[in-house]
Amino acid sequence: MKKLIFLGFALSFAISNELSFRQIREDIFNIDDKTLITYAKKIRLKAIPSNAYELEELIKNTSPDYEIYPTTTKRIELGKKLYFDPRLSRSGLISCNTCHNLGLGGVDGIAASTGHKWQANPHHLNAPSVYNAVFNPNQFWDGRANHLKEQAKGPIQANVEMAEDSQIVVEKIKSIPEYVNEFKDAFSNDINIDFDLIAATIGIFERTLITPSRYDEFLEGNVNALSFDEKQGLRTFINKGCVLCHYGINVGGAFRGFGFVRYQYVNYGDFNGNENNRVKVPTLRNVARTAPYFHNGSIWSLTEAVESMGRIQLGIELSEQEIKNIISFLKSLSGKLPQIVYPELPPSSDETIRPKLDY
Amino acid sequence: MKKLIFLGFALSFAISNELSFRQIREDIFNIDDKTLITYAKKIRLKAIPSNAYELEELIKNTSPDYEIYPTTTKRIELGKKLYFDPRLSRSGLISCNTCHNLGLGGVDGIAASTGHKWQANPHHLNAPSVYNAVFNPNQFWDGRANHLKEQAKGPIQANVEMAEDSQIVVEKIKSIPEYVNEFKDAFSNDINIDFDLIAATIGIFERTLITPSRYDEFLEGNVNALSFDEKQGLRTFINKGCVLCHYGINVGGAFRGFGFVRYQYVNYGDFNGNENNRVKVPTLRNVARTAPYFHNGSIWSLTEAVESMGRIQLGIELSEQEIKNIISFLKSLSGKLPQIVYPELPPSSDETIRPKLDY
Repeated sequence: MKKLIFLGFALSFAISNELSFRQIREDIFNIDDKTLITYAKKIRLKAIPSNAYELEELIKNTSPDYEIYPTTTKRIELGKKLYFDPRLSRSGLISCNTCHNLGLGGVDGIAASTGHKWQANPHHLNAPSVYNAVFNPNQFWDGRANHLKEQAKGPIQANVEMAEDSQIVVEKIKSIPEYVNEFKDAFSNDINIDFDLIAATIGIFERTLITPSRYDEFLEGNVNALSFDEKQGLRTFINKGCVLCHYGINVGGAFRGFGFVRYQYVNYGDFNGNENNRVKVPTLRNVARTAPYFHNGSIWSLTEAVESMGRIQLGIELSEQEIKNIISFLKSLSGKLPQIVYPELPPSSDETIRPKLDY
Repeated sequence: MKKLIFLGFALSFAISNELSFRQIREDIFNIDDKTLITYAKKIRLKAIPSNAYELEELIKNTSPDYEIYPTTTKRIELGKKLYFDPRLSRSGLISCNTCHNLGLGGVDGIAASTGHKWQANPHHLNAPSVYNAVFNPNQFWDGRANHLKEQAKGPIQANVEMAEDSQIVVEKIKSIPEYVNEFKDAFSNDINIDFDLIAATIGIFERTLITPSRYDEFLEGNVNALSFDEKQGLRTFINKGCVLCHYGINVGGAFRGFGFVRYQYVNYGDFNGNENNRVKVPTLRNVARTAPYFHNGSIWSLTEAVESMGRIQLGIELSEQEIKNIISFLKSLSGKLPQIVYPELPPSSDETIRPKLDY
C-alpha cells in the first residue's frame, strides 16, 4: 500500500515537474564538496546572494510592486513602524509582529494563530515565517497572494486576526500627524495614504527580512562553511528526495499535492489546500526556530517532522542516523537575523479612532 | 460643596505633607528662569541626572535589589530577552511588552489591560508606563510592590494577564539551553535559576528604561532647554498646585487620598486604592504618549485630563489658556527613549512546555 502511494507520488512528479528521482545522483555520498555544490545548484538549490547588488536584483524580481515602490531607507523605517504598530488592529493589541514575531523566527510559536477576541484560526492554520517571505513565489498556505503587500492586507482585516476595517486603518493612520508626515517624506508630498499604500509599505519593510546562513556561503563555494555532519545531512536531504519539494532559494515555496498528506493530523482543521488541493511547501530556512510544524502546527519536534515527511511524503522510513544528519543540515539554515531597532511609534491624537476590544 | 471638598483636601495636605499651597510663590510668573529652576527644585521637582555616575547612583538608591544584583551589560541583554519573550506567558502570546509596549510610551494604549483569554483587568486598571518605573518608590496603582522585581512577578502569574505558574516559567527557561547558558554567563556558573532571579533579571533591564527630556536639561540649569510656552506651563503647573501631587523625579509616584476623586468615572472598575484608600499619583513623564488616562483609563484626551484634575483634585476651573500652557509643559516631559535592539529569542527545545491557549 505504502509502495503504491509512493509510486503514484513519484509518477505525478515525473509528469508535473522537471525534477524527479531519476535526476538524483546515486553517488552523492562519494562526490567531493565542490561537485556537491555544483550538483545542488543544478537541482535548484539556490543561495541568498552575498553580493548586495545581486541580492537587490533578486528582491526586485520577487517583488511585483518593486517598480512602483522601490525600497528606500525611509520607507523601510516607516514600514517597520507599521509592522510593529498594534493600532492597525481593531483592539489596538495585535500587530503583524504578534503572529510573525521577529524575535521568534518570524512566527508565533503556537499551533493555530490566535487573534482578535482570542479566536484561533478557524482552519487551525499555523503562521508561516515572515523571514525570507519576499522570496516565496506565493504567500499564504494556499498561495492566494503573490505580493507581500497583498499578504499584509489579509490578517489586518481578517476577523480572527487583527479584525480591522481597511478604511478605519486608513483613518487611524491619517489621524496621527507624525505618520502623515512620514508618508509624505517617504513617498511624496501629495501621496494619497490609502490601505494599499499602507500594506505596500509594510511589504517594503518585509523585503529586508532575509536571513542568509552558512548554507548560503557553502552554496556560493566556501566548502568549509558547513561541517562534515551538515554536508552529510545535505547529501541525505538530496539522496532521499526531500529536495524534490524543498528547493529554490527558500528551500520550499512551490506547491505540492495535498492529497498525499497522510499524516495522523490531516483532519485537524479543515484546510484542503488551494483550488487544486495543493499546498505551499513551507520554507526550511530557520526551521529549527519555527516549531510547531506543518500547515496546522500539529507536530512540535523537528525529529518527528522529518520522520513524518519521509514516511508520508516520500514513502520511506528514514533511519535515526539519516534523521540526525538531515536535522544537522536543517539547523545550518538558521540564518543571521537582520538587526531591528525597536521603533518608537508616533502618538495617537485626540482624533484617532479608539481601540475596540469587543469583550 | 466644591469649596468644602477643596478645603478638606488642602487641610489633609497641610497635615500629611511638608509641601502645601502656602509654599507656592505668588510671584511665580514674575521670577526669572534661573530663580524658577531654583524654586522648582526646592518644591521637589527633580531632574534625571545627565551625569552618568549620578544617574547610576540614583538608580542604585531606587533599586532595593541593586546590591545583590548590580546592573551589567549581560544582565540587561538577558533581561531584555525575557521582557520580550511571550513564552513567559501560559499562551505563549503575551510578553511584558504586550501591555508595556516600549514603542508606545511603555503602555498598551487601551483602557483596561487585557491578557490571557482576552480578559480585561477585573478592576478596569490601566497599565502604567514601564518607562522610568525604576524611579517610582512603589509599583502598581496601590503600591503593593517596591521592587521592579516584585512588580514583574505579578503580571506573569495573574490569571487575566500572562497567567503562567511561576514554577512552569522556571521549567520553560531551564528547558531552553541558550537561556541557561546566558544566566550562567550573566550571573555565575552555579546560579540557581528560580522565579525570583528571572523577575530580578527583567527588573535589571527595566532599570535602563529611562527617558530624560528637555525638562531635565532645564532643571539642570539650561534655561533655553524649554520654550517660553513650556516655561509658562511649568509656572502654571506650580502656581495652580499640580506640583503638590506631581513632584519628585517622576513628577508623580507618591500616594494621595483616593476619596477625593470625584470624577464621573470613579466607579468604573472597583478600584479603591490601597488599604488606606490611597492611590499612586502616576508619573507625568511621557504623559503625551500614554493615553488613556487615570487608573481606569477612562479619559482619552490630555486636555480633558488636565481640566478634570484641576476641577476634581484642586477644586478649580482652569482656563483654556492655562490648560494649553500646562499641556505645553507636559509635552516637554516626553523624553528620549533608549534605543532597544529587538532581541533574538533562543529557540525552545523538545522539552519546553508547550503553550496553552485555553480556548
